[in-house]
Amino acid sequence: MADFVKTKYVTFKEELYLESGRLISPVTIAYETYGKLNASKDNAILICHALTGSAHAAGFHKAGDKPGWWNDMIGSGKAFDTEKYFVICSNILGSCYGATGPSSIDPFTGKHYGRKFPVITVKDMVKAQKRLINHLGLDHLYCVAGGSLGGMQALEWAVTYPDVVRRAILISTAGRITPMAIAFNAIVRLAVTKDPNYKGGDYYDGTPPKDGLAIGRMAGHITYLSDAAFNRKFGRRYATFEGIYDFNGFFEVENYLLYNGYKFTERFDANSYLYLLKAMDIFDLTYEYSSFEEAVSRIKAETLFITFSSDLLFPAYQTEELASLMKKAGNPPKWAQIESDYGHDAFLLEFDEQTKVINEFLKG
Amino acid sequence: MADFVKTKYVTFKEELYLESGRLISPVTIAYETYGKLNASKDNAILICHALTGSAHAAGFHKAGDKPGWWNDMIGSGKAFDTEKYFVICSNILGSCYGATGPSSIDPFTGKHYGRKFPVITVKDMVKAQKRLINHLGLDHLYCVAGGSLGGMQALEWAVTYPDVVRRAILISTAGRITPMAIAFNAIVRLAVTKDPNYKGGDYYDGTPPKDGLAIGRMAGHITYLSDAAFNRKFGRRYATFEGIYDFNGFFEVENYLLYNGYKFTERFDANSYLYLLKAMDIFDLTYEYSSFEEAVSRIKAETLFITFSSDLLFPAYQTEELASLMKKAGNPPKWAQIESDYGHDAFLLEFDEQTKVINEFLKG
Repeated sequence: MADFVKTKYVTFKEELYLESGRLISPVTIAYETYGKLNASKDNAILICHALTGSAHAAGFHKAGDKPGWWNDMIGSGKAFDTEKYFVICSNILGSCYGATGPSSIDPFTGKHYGRKFPVITVKDMVKAQKRLINHLGLDHLYCVAGGSLGGMQALEWAVTYPDVVRRAILISTAGRITPMAIAFNAIVRLAVTKDPNYKGGDYYDGTPPKDGLAIGRMAGHITYLSDAAFNRKFGRRYATFEGIYDFNGFFEVENYLLYNGYKFTERFDANSYLYLLKAMDIFDLTYEYSSFEEAVSRIKAETLFITFSSDLLFPAYQTEELASLMKKAGNPPKWAQIESDYGHDAFLLEFDEQTKVINEFLKG
Repeated sequence: MADFVKTKYVTFKEELYLESGRLISPVTIAYETYGKLNASKDNAILICHALTGSAHAAGFHKAGDKPGWWNDMIGSGKAFDTEKYFVICSNILGSCYGATGPSSIDPFTGKHYGRKFPVITVKDMVKAQKRLINHLGLDHLYCVAGGSLGGMQALEWAVTYPDVVRRAILISTAGRITPMAIAFNAIVRLAVTKDPNYKGGDYYDGTPPKDGLAIGRMAGHITYLSDAAFNRKFGRRYATFEGIYDFNGFFEVENYLLYNGYKFTERFDANSYLYLLKAMDIFDLTYEYSSFEEAVSRIKAETLFITFSSDLLFPAYQTEELASLMKKAGNPPKWAQIESDYGHDAFLLEFDEQTKVINEFLKG
């Protein structure tokens, strides 16, 4: 049995300049590491987590615990082999799992930031991660990898710090999300902010906006699956003892979404959810670099894209566009399109195929 | 200029036996007719409207008014040619546009039904329409046609009254909706019922649950479009004068969904919306007939299916299944798959192609 892992914390006192022009300090980052940094410090891999993930990417905190969110991918002999690599995962700025975010205490008021927390961007998350990397004494990263919002961070890393990132693995992601994805996030915003318990984001001393957050999470959840996954998981099975003709009866799919929607409210801060969705919405490589072409031509890293055939949230044509521009810029990426009917969630579920292509890529 | 059309009303005192086993009376039906019934009474076409449609399918109520919801399809020289056919459209049971529904007055209490209204089904809607047809002195229908929930009604008509229906046009529909479609409806249910103004459905003397209904409508709206439609209509254009880094700033797509979400609350009753979604969820031809095969083998009508390539809500494989079973049963339907990137809404937008295939079908 491997040793238990422990989340570590580092707090940076220096102000972090945000893309919005605002400043924030102090900035605390929760992180975990797996494997050992070698003497030449050239075997570090940064794993970037998705929307509601945490620094706890692998291993167990204690006996009987649930393992980290990508435990099937990180460990001895796995895709990110901890016998070879020093793997780091940190909680993203704005989250509620140990990084500074809207639920943190604002040192100027002594109260939770709430909606006084500045809008943060993917680039801000990456700048905070860069501090952590420096703190760990690293000049460069053997690889940076992530899926979904984690893939956006990895992409931003490769573009912003081309001399630091040697390899980038960009999974189920894009240089900007589609208007349809923004539309789903708009449901969350309205549902959370209209919950009477939301109180303009100042709910920390009372009841959190559970109903609104659950409604929003249900909308999000739909986008993580696919028509095929819905059919396989639930079909049209009826969930309750109420009859079909009872107004309050429902199907298993509804039961599942309700259960997971409310369960989510026990683990995640509503403001954090809104701030992280905002960061997804406004992430757009063309804002800073005027075009995707200019942005991706900065990348020096060897790059691997992974997409999944049934991903509705990050359609493959978005990767197609980035990949062809990188090719044009003289840095042709690898691209593995994996057949899967799991939808966007596939990067959290399809381990065998991902492991194969990642192993090959990291060796190459 | 054609004459203005007028909505007519008929009230049936006899109890209507519902699928649930409950009874309802009186039952009022709002309806409109276009064109003239011929002497042999064999040129009547029933148009069934979708979720939030009304009896006002064509023409104008007054000068400067918006035309009926399928005005491009119904009229002189159009797909449903009023020079030839006597076209009928009635508001469905449970709706709030003149048919008996949860916002109607319960004669036993003198108050709005609210949630005391019985769960109604597509078959119940069709049984109520049958009364209207009888009331109009018709033995049979030259054709019954509809899209989405309207297509479900048309399908139910063809299955339940095989000797009445001569032709059926089933557009963007299915013998039962997918679990993914139910999932979207589940968002609506939670959003509406958790709105503090909903008050268990008893909101008619106060403020209606506008926020919840708007949230729900936004979720519904997403399913009516497609990724391509979102890209074409909105792209990632920013809507507000707030900056990108302002928490309250938003994209045009969000602006559009918010505007239409709240606009919807001014025209539609929240309880009606929930009851009609419920009817969609529990519509399943296999419940009554044990299998699709048994159900569709009852159909004697000539049948035309129309599907649209980008429809996410009613995927074409559902029509494929019904069509192949009808073929097996010796009554092969026609099926036109129309290329369109409008998504599920295409049946309300793609007039040229629909007109062509419907003209041909009605002639044939």
